[in-house]
Amino acid sequence: MNGYPFNRRRATAAHLPLGERRDARFYGKHILSVSQFTRTDLEYIFAVADEMRIMVERVGTFDLLKGKILANLFYEPSTRTSSSFTAAMERLGGSVIPINEVRYSSVAKGESLPDTVRTLEAYSDVIVLRHPETGAAALAARYARKPIINAGDGTGEHPTQALLDLFTIREELGRLEGLTVTMLGDLKYGRTVHSLARLLALYGARINYVSPEILRMPREIVEELERQGIPQREYTMLDDVLAETDVLYVTRVQKERFEDLDEYEQVKDAYVITTETMKRAKPAMILMHPLPRVSEIALDVDLDPRAAYFRQVEYGLYVRMALLAMVLGKA
Amino acid sequence: MNGYPFNRRRATAAHLPLGERRDARFYGKHILSVSQFTRTDLEYIFAVADEMRIMVERVGTFDLLKGKILANLFYEPSTRTSSSFTAAMERLGGSVIPINEVRYSSVAKGESLPDTVRTLEAYSDVIVLRHPETGAAALAARYARKPIINAGDGTGEHPTQALLDLFTIREELGRLEGLTVTMLGDLKYGRTVHSLARLLALYGARINYVSPEILRMPREIVEELERQGIPQREYTMLDDVLAETDVLYVTRVQKERFEDLDEYEQVKDAYVITTETMKRAKPAMILMHPLPRVSEIALDVDLDPRAAYFRQVEYGLYVRMALLAMVLGKA
Amino acid sequence: MNGYPFNRRRATAAHLPLGERRDARFYGKHILSVSQFTRTDLEYIFAVADEMRIMVERVGTFDLLKGKILANLFYEPSTRTSSSFTAAMERLGGSVIPINEVRYSSVAKGESLPDTVRTLEAYSDVIVLRHPETGAAALAARYARKPIINAGDGTGEHPTQALLDLFTIREELGRLEGLTVTMLGDLKYGRTVHSLARLLALYGARINYVSPEILRMPREIVEELERQGIPQREYTMLDDVLAETDVLYVTRVQKERFEDLDEYEQVKDAYVITTETMKRAKPAMILMHPLPRVSEIALDVDLDPRAAYFRQVEYGLYVRMALLAMVLGKA
Repeated sequence: MNGYPFNRRRATAAHLPLGERRDARFYGKHILSVSQFTRTDLEYIFAVADEMRIMVERVGTFDLLKGKILANLFYEPSTRTSSSFTAAMERLGGSVIPINEVRYSSVAKGESLPDTVRTLEAYSDVIVLRHPETGAAALAARYARKPIINAGDGTGEHPTQALLDLFTIREELGRLEGLTVTMLGDLKYGRTVHSLARLLALYGARINYVSPEILRMPREIVEELERQGIPQREYTMLDDVLAETDVLYVTRVQKERFEDLDEYEQVKDAYVITTETMKRAKPAMILMHPLPRVSEIALDVDLDPRAAYFRQVEYGLYVRMALLAMVLGKA
Repeated sequence: MNGYPFNRRRATAAHLPLGERRDARFYGKHILSVSQFTRTDLEYIFAVADEMRIMVERVGTFDLLKGKILANLFYEPSTRTSSSFTAAMERLGGSVIPINEVRYSSVAKGESLPDTVRTLEAYSDVIVLRHPETGAAALAARYARKPIINAGDGTGEHPTQALLDLFTIREELGRLEGLTVTMLGDLKYGRTVHSLARLLALYGARINYVSPEILRMPREIVEELERQGIPQREYTMLDDVLAETDVLYVTRVQKERFEDLDEYEQVKDAYVITTETMKRAKPAMILMHPLPRVSEIALDVDLDPRAAYFRQVEYGLYVRMALLAMVLGKA
Repeated sequence: MNGYPFNRRRATAAHLPLGERRDARFYGKHILSVSQFTRTDLEYIFAVADEMRIMVERVGTFDLLKGKILANLFYEPSTRTSSSFTAAMERLGGSVIPINEVRYSSVAKGESLPDTVRTLEAYSDVIVLRHPETGAAALAARYARKPIINAGDGTGEHPTQALLDLFTIREELGRLEGLTVTMLGDLKYGRTVHSLARLLALYGARINYVSPEILRMPREIVEELERQGIPQREYTMLDDVLAETDVLYVTRVQKERFEDLDEYEQVKDAYVITTETMKRAKPAMILMHPLPRVSEIALDVDLDPRAAYFRQVEYGLYVRMALLAMVLGKA
């Protein structure tokens, strides 16, 4: 975590000793959607995430959640998200029940999500849920007595990704207000950019959308932000907005989203970031990506200090540690 | 675990401090079959399970098995049982080696179960084994120097399920003697009801079997219990015995057991429990199910306080904690 | 670990208290290939492995790596190796992120190994990598800031297996110098014997190769050892060298290595060890096998105290504990 230039801000919000604040706002609550958070909530989450970062850098692991058990319930595989939550729980001294094989298990025998959740909450203190169907996390939460954290449900929400994206910007650029954020690539199917746009709206960002015509940001999101007075503009060429961009958020054009593979082949290389691209960008901007990356960012861009995507992974750890601690009343 | 009405009995058997009784009866022993237990054994297991329940309710997790390692060896997937043992070990402060991918592993290369067991016991202190073939646990135990706990071997035994079923009845109804237990559904292929019937025989229960003709309780079990003087009767209609039933144990008619799918379609809805059914049942009876449930119990029955099946899951945790502690000499 | 007769040697190298030597030689280093080790390195590894053995025999588990996290990244399944590293980390009080499902994950979406490694090192302190492609571990190490331990990369290296093989010989026979080692079976495709041969060369062993013509030891290895002055001879019949053998290392003729299955059927039973074979072997020799075994060693040979292969598994645990502790600066 050392040596990158944009980290102008450090946590100062730790006004009470770790473990002594039982936050009524999040204790026992579900984390289902970015729409549940106010700006005050976000500031609180980020302050706790900052504490987590300091503790990890200082001692690596600590026993804040010792004795707590996380059921990591993944109905579809996601090594990245699953590993991040596992690491978050282990760095807090807790334990994990990994459930990655749902397709071979009870569920395959026809068990409903509510029954699975009511079984797992007998074993665990908090459930992280990844599910291919939109609304699955809300359904689970209706039945669960233990907190549910939505780790992505279909084309719906992936709130912890959006939170870590926002936390990355805040840590890297030192502020969230007054920024110009450009989202690039597949803006239609990428739930990541949908949720991030909604969160950025709370901070009055200017947002540029750069995508092929067929992958434009959905109308309902654009209109939702319009009603909040957020300046948004749509482009097909990155160069139109690159010079003014503080945050360039690149997304992968996912092959599996296309029914017509010809269409995929046509657009997949249209928005590739190279070292040439970076030469035309601001010296103090950051380049983000939710990963996994395929070819949309050239490998030699990794050496550019503005390439923040691997640091973004690490910020994700701190945000997930914060959320786990908060819903378990230990933040 | 609060708020259900039938918990008339609490553990009082903890006559020695936790961790100071090294029980010669179970220390280092395998848990292979319900037939290995006397009534005294069962009372001891349940007393330890009661202690586990109290500790979990009080502190969640404790370090009774800190430093001990469980190899959780599942040759066929069973999220439910696997998670239960993982949680049991973690709540006791121990660690788990999860082995869920046996179909892709050494075994696929032709390794025998005895070799696999002798390998894993070099890494672990106790092995939980789930295997599709009857007799697998006994075979493993012949070679193992570390305790083997049978977590289900084919159509053979699933002793920890039977123990948790019995423990559920004891905790919920406050006694095991003098009960009328009705088993419903697939009594032919359900190893759960086979083992439970054998354990109930130790307590002199009256047992009713209600099933379609083609799914009747196997003759050898009926005859075995007959020799012990257990009153057993067979029915095809639940209403014949519902009013006298203290424990209604519902099992799933498993599609995968049928060679003829027409036969399955014919019987699958024959024994569905609804709120109407529950109106005709005793006010102080309990409704049990080994889960996963598909459609054999209607969802609105879940709200009935007599519906004990999710509490049953929790009792399973305590029983498995008890067994792990006992075979490792820490009960 | 008790009761076998050849353990003439015990660790005496623990000249400093555990946890107080920060070994500059291995701290933060990758473990990629046997060729990176000098004899001094090996002696140091084995001394630490001896300490690990003593600690495990005494207390089972201890907190040397408490708070450290191992990412166990397996691109191809290997229950044995994966479980061994998991156990090693857990016996040292550390935690594990198990990643066994790589074929369904980000990688399936096209993510490169360097990106996966740079993601996982944000979550963990050390990465164990198993990969089907030769050179994968070296590639990962070029990008990783955290130590990579190669747990097998294709037909390339499997250095921890070679180290545990050598450690087994040292512990069982009390020395590594002046031994006659006979390697039997598939010497062409078995990376195990390739790496072991290279390590034995450091100690001036005499090496016999016994294999079918089509499975002979590769020329480049034979020539490499020849240049070091190691006496090597090739045979097709075990009886030619059995009587002089101190270490008989049997390997499995792996079906999956053969394109022509007829060829496999022809040779698979050619080198089976039976109790008859053992009668003609030295009384103080040892019989080794990397496991899994299929039929190349008859089951009743297991009862022979010279059969060291299950003890070999246990030595593997100690060697892997040593390596983890060393690269994390805690040996």
